[in-house]
Amino acid sequence: MVSRRAAALAAQPPAIAAAHFRAEAHPYHPRLRPGGYINLGTAENRLVWDLLAPRLTGPRPLSAADTHYAPLHGTDAFREQLARFLGGVCRTEVDPEHLVVVSGVTSALDVIASVLCDPGEAIVVPAPYYGAFDVDLVGRSGARLLPVPLSAGRNFQVTASEIGHALTRARERGVTVRAVALASPGNPVGHVHPPQVLREIAEVAGQHGVDVIVDEIYANSVFGGAPFVSFLDPEVRRAGTGRVHIVWGFAKDFGLPGFKIGVLCSPDPEVCAAARALAYFAATSTDTQAVLRDVLADRAWVARFLAESRRRLALSYASSVELLTAAGVPFVPVGAGFSLWVDLGAWLTAPTFAAEHALWERILEQACVNVLPGQLFASPDPGWFRICYATDLAVVTEGISRVVRLLGASEPRGDERAAVSSRPVGATRYESIED
Amino acid sequence: MVSRRAAALAAQPPAIAAAHFRAEAHPYHPRLRPGGYINLGTAENRLVWDLLAPRLTGPRPLSAADTHYAPLHGTDAFREQLARFLGGVCRTEVDPEHLVVVSGVTSALDVIASVLCDPGEAIVVPAPYYGAFDVDLVGRSGARLLPVPLSAGRNFQVTASEIGHALTRARERGVTVRAVALASPGNPVGHVHPPQVLREIAEVAGQHGVDVIVDEIYANSVFGGAPFVSFLDPEVRRAGTGRVHIVWGFAKDFGLPGFKIGVLCSPDPEVCAAARALAYFAATSTDTQAVLRDVLADRAWVARFLAESRRRLALSYASSVELLTAAGVPFVPVGAGFSLWVDLGAWLTAPTFAAEHALWERILEQACVNVLPGQLFASPDPGWFRICYATDLAVVTEGISRVVRLLGASEPRGDERAAVSSRPVGATRYESIED
Ligand SMILES: Cc1ncc(COP(=O)(O)O)c(C=O)c1O
Ligand SMILES: Cc1ncc(COP(=O)(O)O)c(C=O)c1O
Repeated sequence: MVSRRAAALAAQPPAIAAAHFRAEAHPYHPRLRPGGYINLGTAENRLVWDLLAPRLTGPRPLSAADTHYAPLHGTDAFREQLARFLGGVCRTEVDPEHLVVVSGVTSALDVIASVLCDPGEAIVVPAPYYGAFDVDLVGRSGARLLPVPLSAGRNFQVTASEIGHALTRARERGVTVRAVALASPGNPVGHVHPPQVLREIAEVAGQHGVDVIVDEIYANSVFGGAPFVSFLDPEVRRAGTGRVHIVWGFAKDFGLPGFKIGVLCSPDPEVCAAARALAYFAATSTDTQAVLRDVLADRAWVARFLAESRRRLALSYASSVELLTAAGVPFVPVGAGFSLWVDLGAWLTAPTFAAEHALWERILEQACVNVLPGQLFASPDPGWFRICYATDLAVVTEGISRVVRLLGASEPRGDERAAVSSRPVGATRYESIED
Repeated sequence: MVSRRAAALAAQPPAIAAAHFRAEAHPYHPRLRPGGYINLGTAENRLVWDLLAPRLTGPRPLSAADTHYAPLHGTDAFREQLARFLGGVCRTEVDPEHLVVVSGVTSALDVIASVLCDPGEAIVVPAPYYGAFDVDLVGRSGARLLPVPLSAGRNFQVTASEIGHALTRARERGVTVRAVALASPGNPVGHVHPPQVLREIAEVAGQHGVDVIVDEIYANSVFGGAPFVSFLDPEVRRAGTGRVHIVWGFAKDFGLPGFKIGVLCSPDPEVCAAARALAYFAATSTDTQAVLRDVLADRAWVARFLAESRRRLALSYASSVELLTAAGVPFVPVGAGFSLWVDLGAWLTAPTFAAEHALWERILEQACVNVLPGQLFASPDPGWFRICYATDLAVVTEGISRVVRLLGASEPRGDERAAVSSRPVGATRYESIED
């Protein structure tokens, strides 16, 4: 027997992780296992190991002090480097005292949700959203999510007015909302949100007296025409708007998901103090902090690394887009992140999530490709899939080709759902901003 | 504003950590800062860095896979090494699938408490106990502790009958107890619990249908005559006894508290599954897991390292005991751990915890020595202090000498409390077992 709370958590193992490990267990190899699994489900940057290896595999200048007890929300030296780095990314002064380092952005999301919400209180999230929000923001905090469905017709762009309506509706129904949470750049839809939209979100949240949690984990993985603008950018933050809490980590931009280093940045002293108390339970290794501290200290290297990573991401994105376009598979054009949001609605046997799940299984079983179904991201409509391309070009090409072959074997449905999806790819305001 | 839960956690920052960082900020140096702080408050093994440095500062043979997403309760390779190592320590077969690696024993305690207890349910703990149990077992789980006061007259030895009485009393009062928790070897009193006592505890817990949580973080820091016997040892575990969950980590035995690597070992599949779900929020760096995996794989080195660490601990312990004995300061003789449990009751201005706190402050302010007052460890009686000696001999000597000088300046009280304390040091059954 275990506690009710633990039983509830264990009952929903994150589906994303399960599919990941299944695909990883028998991976594709062009020669050794040509029929093996191709993992386009996990948003992992596998394009940069050659750049990282020299920095991570060499001798480590650790001192005794690096192995002792240290502030459990991150060593002073690491937070200083992080503050300088994030200050550059967010184009604002970042105080190391506002940073709380924890075990991945996963923990950072748990910490900020637990700090802001008592059990039963709510967080508004535009949907589709990063699927693990359901666990990270909810699992330990006891908060609940209120999804705001975004419109496929507007390419799933986030708008402040829809968030505002959700906040108003929640208040009318007597629900206490503590925050709006969103990923910026987006995931699963890798939009780079325009500063104007961010500003409006800040304003509407401020008007409703709720905080904003912004997951900027992809901040440096922006490769389209529109530059990243942080929620902390002075252009976005203005007098009179409410509290904003940013999370960031090394999993995406630095291709180091295994290191599980995330950071919460909150300018509010009370929130910071509470977050530090929770960080005590999710403290990170001073060993890994030391090596990342030294990586960040080499600013020239970091600038080159991130530029090269973006270049490679752009290439992978362009090839994937080309394959999908050639096959007539619709998708949302974006300028950031590791994944494409692809519309396979025309290939569903019915416009339902059950049919989406069936297609997902067919792709996993028959094509041996792990992509993720939109339902995992709280997609408002069935038929969307997330395909990650931040890996070896040959692997991506093989993976997408397999999916396309599988789809080719089945006729697209000719109903109204397919018609919506077949709008000209990229004929949207967003394309011109980002690509 | 923050959530009620977060406010409660932040309101009690672990006092141990606060005193630690104060003392570390202006440390003693024989030449450069002879009046500086001496930190005998933190149970940190500072005797072994010269042995560790060659293994930790060299090149790291990390592969790309070591940086990718991995099972969030520890990589397979690390858990395999851990299982083999712990199997040797505990003299039993340990299944890597029973291990859940998390961010320090701190997190392991949080995880097991949260898995076993719903909010309001109780854990019975013999007192004095490791002070952070109040945060680790309680802070996020919402469980509460029921201390079982141990008797100074019996040198604070744990007995199964006292635990049994506490369980019976709790039941009579309608309190749901889920577990008994104890450190073995003990902390703050470094007893090596005899197998007979452990067996009786297992039996009494089994009779009452509660689990046992055993914190064996000091398992390899045993230097007295009595060998360590794990709660998992077949000599202790017998048919019919209840569930046992062990926690261990690298902070003490390996002198690596900064690395924050802890592990929960539970043979119960349901507990393990729930613990894995919680470990997701306290995942550890694959980077640090990789280096510790390689350390553990070198079994000959580990055996030499632990033997040398024990030898140095024994020396430091013996010197500290000599200084205290010469000064007529009573203490409990023990055979494990990094600290002495010292009775300064005779130097209190009154037999109260307020007087204990005042003496603690005097030692910190006037002698500039950080030792910890017994109240932090839920000591049943005022006047006890924990003095850590697992650091440079010159530093320990200076620290204890300063305390002794400070005490010498004030007359011991001649009341009944002092009389109890002045029993002949070490004239107990325990000494013969352990030392
Ligand atoms: C938006 C977003 N936030 C958080 C995470 C998880 O971050 P971490 O691996 O640092 O816990 C991911 C990874 O998939 C993500 O896409
Ligand atoms: C009995 C006991 N358990 C747990 C801990 C903390 O372990 P960690 O540093 O791995 O979180 C300590 C350290 O003081 C301890 O003495």
